[in-house]
Amino acid sequence: MKAKAIFYHAGCPVCVAAEQHVANALDTSRYDVEIVHLGESKSRLQEAEVAGVKSVPALVLDGSAFHINFGAGIDALR
Amino acid sequence: MKAKAIFYHAGCPVCVAAEQHVANALDTSRYDVEIVHLGESKSRLQEAEVAGVKSVPALVLDGSAFHINFGAGIDALR
Repeated sequence: MKAKAIFYHAGCPVCVAAEQHVANALDTSRYDVEIVHLGESKSRLQEAEVAGVKSVPALVLDGSAFHINFGAGIDALR
Repeated sequence: MKAKAIFYHAGCPVCVAAEQHVANALDTSRYDVEIVHLGESKSRLQEAEVAGVKSVPALVLDGSAFHINFGAGIDALR
């Protein structure tokens, strides 16, 4: 069974670069990669926060949140 | 030909977690992944800075630097 990788972003330029490079570099034979735009999918904000996401872009791998650069604070998306 | 992925770290707990999750999640069929401990390999500091690394842990993918969380400023490693 594949592990879950969720890449949260908000469409900012830093996010797009991180998505194109980091999210697309993941091994899809081992990870189901889901891309979530938190600006458009505000219903996913709570789930992201529970996973430890403080800013976007962020990658949640195996339930652990890893922030990539610092784009926008998650509070700015509410 | 594989693209180059270099994961720079300094042995801090945040770095180790990022290495175990993010660096190991990369697709090694498309990327040659190199792990560099900047605390031990100070000769690589300049190369890391030229690539745009400002803090560790960081991942340089296709020549672009992506900072993962914020562990330690690169200046603290000199």
